[in-house]
Amino acid sequence: MFEVVAFDADDTLWFSEDSFRKYETQFVETLTPYVPVGVDIKAALVATERKNIDAYGYGVKSFGLSSMEAAITLSNGEIPAFELQKILHGVREHLTEPVRVFEGVAEVLAQVSSQFRTILITKGDLAHQTRKVETSGLSHHFEHVEIVLEKDPATYAHVLKSLDINPERFCMVGNSMKSDILPVLAIGGFGVYVPYEILWELDHAEHPTANTDRYVELETLSLVPEWLAQQRK
Amino acid sequence: MFEVVAFDADDTLWFSEDSFRKYETQFVETLTPYVPVGVDIKAALVATERKNIDAYGYGVKSFGLSSMEAAITLSNGEIPAFELQKILHGVREHLTEPVRVFEGVAEVLAQVSSQFRTILITKGDLAHQTRKVETSGLSHHFEHVEIVLEKDPATYAHVLKSLDINPERFCMVGNSMKSDILPVLAIGGFGVYVPYEILWELDHAEHPTANTDRYVELETLSLVPEWLAQQRK
Repeated sequence: MFEVVAFDADDTLWFSEDSFRKYETQFVETLTPYVPVGVDIKAALVATERKNIDAYGYGVKSFGLSSMEAAITLSNGEIPAFELQKILHGVREHLTEPVRVFEGVAEVLAQVSSQFRTILITKGDLAHQTRKVETSGLSHHFEHVEIVLEKDPATYAHVLKSLDINPERFCMVGNSMKSDILPVLAIGGFGVYVPYEILWELDHAEHPTANTDRYVELETLSLVPEWLAQQRK
Repeated sequence: MFEVVAFDADDTLWFSEDSFRKYETQFVETLTPYVPVGVDIKAALVATERKNIDAYGYGVKSFGLSSMEAAITLSNGEIPAFELQKILHGVREHLTEPVRVFEGVAEVLAQVSSQFRTILITKGDLAHQTRKVETSGLSHHFEHVEIVLEKDPATYAHVLKSLDINPERFCMVGNSMKSDILPVLAIGGFGVYVPYEILWELDHAEHPTANTDRYVELETLSLVPEWLAQQRK
């Protein structure tokens, strides 16, 4: 049935979005004294990130630059430098915090990689994603690690072609409908959706309405090996 | 002789370092009124970049974050937000400025790619490097584009293995002794060094003292096709 199983990384194998939420909350607390009552600080930050995605791409450094910009804009230039320094410290702390792998992930990867060519496809910052993969202790399970700028159909098609993978024998496992499932269905692959409780606003998408026979939702990652085994019968 | 020829991108195919110098000079001018006479502003910025490379990686976003940090530190927190906003505007401008290809590059790539598997290996920011490759009009000359975190022997070995390339039949063309030549010699490949007049402090290295039979220095990129043709005889 499948020849290659690919895993997303952030919020599929390890915690990620909860850290962004933590720094987002810190940002709101830092800005509150400098912003008129009634301004939605969090919404302004997300809008700044959205505006900058094209130029900056995804990841913590982009989040940090957008945070600095939003801080200056929201405070009308009144934010003191020491508050901005706190934001910069947060960026470095965020980039270097230990990776926190979800429970049971190592076992799942060991089982899957013993039966399928297993790869990792993640989007985001090259430095940060590489650090997480290398320090996770999980990289030996992956035949290949691909860090991409955007998870769209063209990117998946390109990666699969470069690795000589037939989309019909390709299965992508991830927590984002928009990034891990819909683009893979669009190129003829299979998607295993394993939702995580927190999802970034900019990564939201509705469930698929087409190709639903090539898509399944599982409650936890630990159900993936058994589901894959069933597909072989 | 060679099966694969790889090109570096920044300051090998197009201008790059001169933009960093421009924003560096702007940084020094911006900071000067806020810093005691006798402080070496440029040296402090480069030292901040060096300190942050491990966490941030290479590229414009890293340069921007280090610039903000150095601005706050050097001014002892006295720099006003509107000056920091100028630095942020510079980051966005730098990331989105049009790519300026060196003269004659298109012809060189057309000739080389008609005779060898031709790839591009560049380090830096995923979003920025991708934008430059895609908007340069040159990407069709490359069978493969690899954007890496660090150009060290382990990374070259990994890339060559994933593309099924024998290092003995691999030739890397680039402007950085440290990033393009020495690590390639170390894994048994060949290096064509085409120096560019400006080199980033953190990318400096001495000329090789070993494996000098697998290394050549050419004055311009336009000499590469003829040199490659001579190696076939």
